Amino acid sequence: MGKISVGIVGATGYTGLELARILGGHPAVSIAFATSESYAGRCLSAVHPAAPSLPLVALEGAPLAEADVVFLCLPHAESALVAAEALAMGVRVVDLSADFRLKDAAVYRAWYGLEHPAPDLLQEAAYGLTEFARPHLPAARLVTNPGCYPTSILLALQPLLAVGAANGTIIADSKSGVSGAGRTPKQETHFVEVADNFSPYSIGRSHRHLPEIEQQMRCWNPDSPQLIFSPHLLPVPRGILSTIYMPLKGSWNESRLYDLYQEQYQSEPFVQVLEPGKLPSLAHVNYTNKCVIGLVVAGETAVLTAAIDNLGKGAAGQAVQNMNVMFGIEEIVGLIG
Amino acid sequence: MGKISVGIVGATGYTGLELARILGGHPAVSIAFATSESYAGRCLSAVHPAAPSLPLVALEGAPLAEADVVFLCLPHAESALVAAEALAMGVRVVDLSADFRLKDAAVYRAWYGLEHPAPDLLQEAAYGLTEFARPHLPAARLVTNPGCYPTSILLALQPLLAVGAANGTIIADSKSGVSGAGRTPKQETHFVEVADNFSPYSIGRSHRHLPEIEQQMRCWNPDSPQLIFSPHLLPVPRGILSTIYMPLKGSWNESRLYDLYQEQYQSEPFVQVLEPGKLPSLAHVNYTNKCVIGLVVAGETAVLTAAIDNLGKGAAGQAVQNMNVMFGIEEIVGLIG
Amino acid sequence: MGKISVGIVGATGYTGLELARILGGHPAVSIAFATSESYAGRCLSAVHPAAPSLPLVALEGAPLAEADVVFLCLPHAESALVAAEALAMGVRVVDLSADFRLKDAAVYRAWYGLEHPAPDLLQEAAYGLTEFARPHLPAARLVTNPGCYPTSILLALQPLLAVGAANGTIIADSKSGVSGAGRTPKQETHFVEVADNFSPYSIGRSHRHLPEIEQQMRCWNPDSPQLIFSPHLLPVPRGILSTIYMPLKGSWNESRLYDLYQEQYQSEPFVQVLEPGKLPSLAHVNYTNKCVIGLVVAGETAVLTAAIDNLGKGAAGQAVQNMNVMFGIEEIVGLIG
Amino acid sequence: MGKISVGIVGATGYTGLELARILGGHPAVSIAFATSESYAGRCLSAVHPAAPSLPLVALEGAPLAEADVVFLCLPHAESALVAAEALAMGVRVVDLSADFRLKDAAVYRAWYGLEHPAPDLLQEAAYGLTEFARPHLPAARLVTNPGCYPTSILLALQPLLAVGAANGTIIADSKSGVSGAGRTPKQETHFVEVADNFSPYSIGRSHRHLPEIEQQMRCWNPDSPQLIFSPHLLPVPRGILSTIYMPLKGSWNESRLYDLYQEQYQSEPFVQVLEPGKLPSLAHVNYTNKCVIGLVVAGETAVLTAAIDNLGKGAAGQAVQNMNVMFGIEEIVGLIG
Repeated sequence: MGKISVGIVGATGYTGLELARILGGHPAVSIAFATSESYAGRCLSAVHPAAPSLPLVALEGAPLAEADVVFLCLPHAESALVAAEALAMGVRVVDLSADFRLKDAAVYRAWYGLEHPAPDLLQEAAYGLTEFARPHLPAARLVTNPGCYPTSILLALQPLLAVGAANGTIIADSKSGVSGAGRTPKQETHFVEVADNFSPYSIGRSHRHLPEIEQQMRCWNPDSPQLIFSPHLLPVPRGILSTIYMPLKGSWNESRLYDLYQEQYQSEPFVQVLEPGKLPSLAHVNYTNKCVIGLVVAGETAVLTAAIDNLGKGAAGQAVQNMNVMFGIEEIVGLIG
Repeated sequence: MGKISVGIVGATGYTGLELARILGGHPAVSIAFATSESYAGRCLSAVHPAAPSLPLVALEGAPLAEADVVFLCLPHAESALVAAEALAMGVRVVDLSADFRLKDAAVYRAWYGLEHPAPDLLQEAAYGLTEFARPHLPAARLVTNPGCYPTSILLALQPLLAVGAANGTIIADSKSGVSGAGRTPKQETHFVEVADNFSPYSIGRSHRHLPEIEQQMRCWNPDSPQLIFSPHLLPVPRGILSTIYMPLKGSWNESRLYDLYQEQYQSEPFVQVLEPGKLPSLAHVNYTNKCVIGLVVAGETAVLTAAIDNLGKGAAGQAVQNMNVMFGIEEIVGLIG
Repeated sequence: MGKISVGIVGATGYTGLELARILGGHPAVSIAFATSESYAGRCLSAVHPAAPSLPLVALEGAPLAEADVVFLCLPHAESALVAAEALAMGVRVVDLSADFRLKDAAVYRAWYGLEHPAPDLLQEAAYGLTEFARPHLPAARLVTNPGCYPTSILLALQPLLAVGAANGTIIADSKSGVSGAGRTPKQETHFVEVADNFSPYSIGRSHRHLPEIEQQMRCWNPDSPQLIFSPHLLPVPRGILSTIYMPLKGSWNESRLYDLYQEQYQSEPFVQVLEPGKLPSLAHVNYTNKCVIGLVVAGETAVLTAAIDNLGKGAAGQAVQNMNVMFGIEEIVGLIG
Repeated sequence: MGKISVGIVGATGYTGLELARILGGHPAVSIAFATSESYAGRCLSAVHPAAPSLPLVALEGAPLAEADVVFLCLPHAESALVAAEALAMGVRVVDLSADFRLKDAAVYRAWYGLEHPAPDLLQEAAYGLTEFARPHLPAARLVTNPGCYPTSILLALQPLLAVGAANGTIIADSKSGVSGAGRTPKQETHFVEVADNFSPYSIGRSHRHLPEIEQQMRCWNPDSPQLIFSPHLLPVPRGILSTIYMPLKGSWNESRLYDLYQEQYQSEPFVQVLEPGKLPSLAHVNYTNKCVIGLVVAGETAVLTAAIDNLGKGAAGQAVQNMNVMFGIEEIVGLIG
């Protein structure tokens, strides 16, 4: 079989750079093109010294139709338009923006403040939390890659949600490295503002990842409770750790919890459930595609901890994992588990 | 009036160093002695380049009786013995260890695994969360300085607890800088292990600060619910931020919450309540004696955020604040608000 | 005597914020105004949570004439114009920009690529390396505050240069924290680009601080050799450490070097010479106005190390030290030595 | 051909962990054993969460004779004894300690303060700076892996030294991440002491890497000048950047320098020479086996900058590169260039 020809649209952000790094070492892939508006005509290694030497082209000059699949790392609203264009050419799409994560155009409008640019595609888009999306991926034309926070929270919640063990409001207290805020320089990502600091932001029910998470929770269990979601900015370049509190129905201890999670995840190449008494940290996951989950029971509450690399399993890694399944390649190829 | 003569027992840990720094600039204080077993005969500036040039003496050679008050920065169990000795000489004590925080010797035994060395003093010890301890401090012989995590959590909880608004299990998700783990080198505080990392530890109901917090919660409201407390290690030298989730009884919005907290704290020199929509961060508080509190309501849950400097309001700063009240000095003297 | 009325022009950069912090605690100063173009109408604490609550006004609305002295924290070229305006009103000026550091307008043109906006003031400006400027400051209308790198390098070089001990090209290998690059967000100061990284820039003879340093070297010794100056960006918020290599004429050992430096600096409140065998670090100086110097002799070469806080002795601290001397106040008032 | 059977002796330090990571992914290698005294009986992933799940055995229980080659990551003096033992069994050795770097037992005694434990092996040991050791490696029984600082400095110096361009004392001002100081917790590697700090140490002519560097300089040119070497501790986990100043004989500009370095290195897979005007940083090299070199001419002085990952090209990476050559495998296998 020939190599999969891929395009990276928006290669100079942190997600695009990570995709270039992973795909550059993927034995079944050939990179057809990588786009950038601001760096067109230059080389990706001019953007970041550790990046591969890919030539960068403007999107309008990119040979879109030559790709088997394009990865879109664009701002929301822009991404949907390019996705529609690529699909029209018969090119498959893995979209890393938020454009196709919400199924309902009205919800999109409410959270993003604008009309969805391609509402007709919303139902078709497969939600690419790979571990739960496998049946849909081989035939999918359009895969929407989950958000970084949602990936960490949903993988931790699924087993208990699915058995109906949730007994009231769930709290996800999440902490993310700065690459999650993008590569465009802003006051709040200036080194001097972030170093030695730690900041909550958009806590409660106000962050755009909230409806994405709740939508998927309801897919797994229509009676899922409400979520409170509190993101915080960590002074590290990468990594997410979510600490999740779920009130429990029924009688649970850590051993029973461990059995439930092992049943779900023990054959997963990228999800590792720690034995009771052990807790994950960013050191478990950074520069990998893994999600590592810790299990504690405190009184009637499960305290779940989940760590991922926001650029790995939280973005580029999971996108490649999805691509592998879409194209019938072994799921772990090109990824670190 | 003459200066207050103070002794610092255990001056070479981070808490002792911070006390030396604050007391060295305090206009109403003269430092009678500073002790260290491992550095006796040397100077505090040999321990840390920014420390004042205090000579260090071994505890057995320290002129304990010359001090009006001693600050104890010793490991638990050791501290209680020195406290008893100092009190017997008529010297007042501010103890920064955990020895006098728990009122019940049986609870101490359960959490610390040993008999309390001075159980007769437990009832006498005033719990020095200054904002709520003022009536007791001027006459107190023995003040027990609150733990760092408890200070951040209790100041945030008090107004809602006192009015009986808590409606079920409270969750405190806390994040602390590394100086909270002490100055003795350990694998888990090695720079390479902490940098770029973020780790939960002792989460649920297993950290020794839990019984201290719950004891004080019950002082304010005997019907206080259970607490789940999850500490995490932040890759920064100093600062604590606690994100606290309290299910609410009755009808609350952020405006009503703000009024309640302002009523409690608006005249406090070291507690700052942020307007709804604003959130605290470590940058608000580091190198100060402040506690800054943010207020969010999400559905039926209050999301309280509280930031302190763990070495300031969480340890040495609050100890000096307590000393100021004990000796009738204006409370803000020598401290940064 | 009444308080000195000061204005801060450009209060929202890191230098301006540090000035506000120091001057806000200075017992002999009252802050008449603080200016900002982008934040006019708001409060300085909206810019940084630890800043004092100063109202910010646009420069054109600032009561310039009411100040006894203004501190200018503006980009070069802008600063000279405001300086001229203030002086014309009889207001004294401490300029923290580069505009008056070079005595020769042609040199300014060569390094800054534009005509000097106020060349008539160049000769009058006193070069405010306080330890060597004291005779000129009480009468000075216009003081030009030295650059941060030059302060660290010049204080280390002066004693050996003055006795004519330099024997060939001097090398200054300097490392600076990120606040030295300003508060405006740029790609190269984005947290993710700086963290875990370390970068040389403008090394050799290409950084704008080079002519400033060489000019002052020639003031002390017309036969001063050439300088090679290599700045590097450190992943810390603040602090500069310069490691300086001077080939030596004559016979030197560390003891003789120490005597020479002690003779020059032992009565200085803000310059500390370490005994042979000890070396400075950023921990010696950050959040102070100190310069700490270490002395090593290796063969025929002196290896001098000098540490300062780039925002303290390297900018705002030294500016206040200069103000103290200008107005006949004790030099250490308001500063940490 | 069968896989190379390797043993890692001392697998739980940072160098051993990095070797385990690289060798675990090396397609031509099978790991026969990994040793640890303190963790024997446990698994390497218990030491570090990102490490592979290798069982750890005590050295005395390790099947030394089954390995084709052992990598020694032991303290000096211990290493030489194990090397002698392995060689006696016919097992080849790559020693990552300092034991075989100095050819002269008297020099070893002077710098390490003890008699060399296996002086008979000193002459045989091949100095494994791979780029210059290739002819000797295929037949070598014992390869001594260069120090981390020496690797960065020697690769930068070689082309100019070899053509006799050095004209007086060379200065190497080097900065290293904390993993270079080892994994054993010490006061000076405690997170709180290192964060926000930057410190010179052993500067001048007192660091143990100095004689190693000068010995190799003299191999390339017996008339090599003296070196002054100043290491500094950077607040990052990994990476070394050396800034090197060489006075030049003859007429040089950056273009001529670039030609000379390209001639030497352009076909090297792991040495990258940057075009004039570009400078290396840790971001160029971390997590790779690369050395990236920048070239500046300032007056009569070459300012060379060289970056490596101290655990990669500075230790484990180069050790594997040496192994590849020793066993006739393509040099880049298993390594990131």
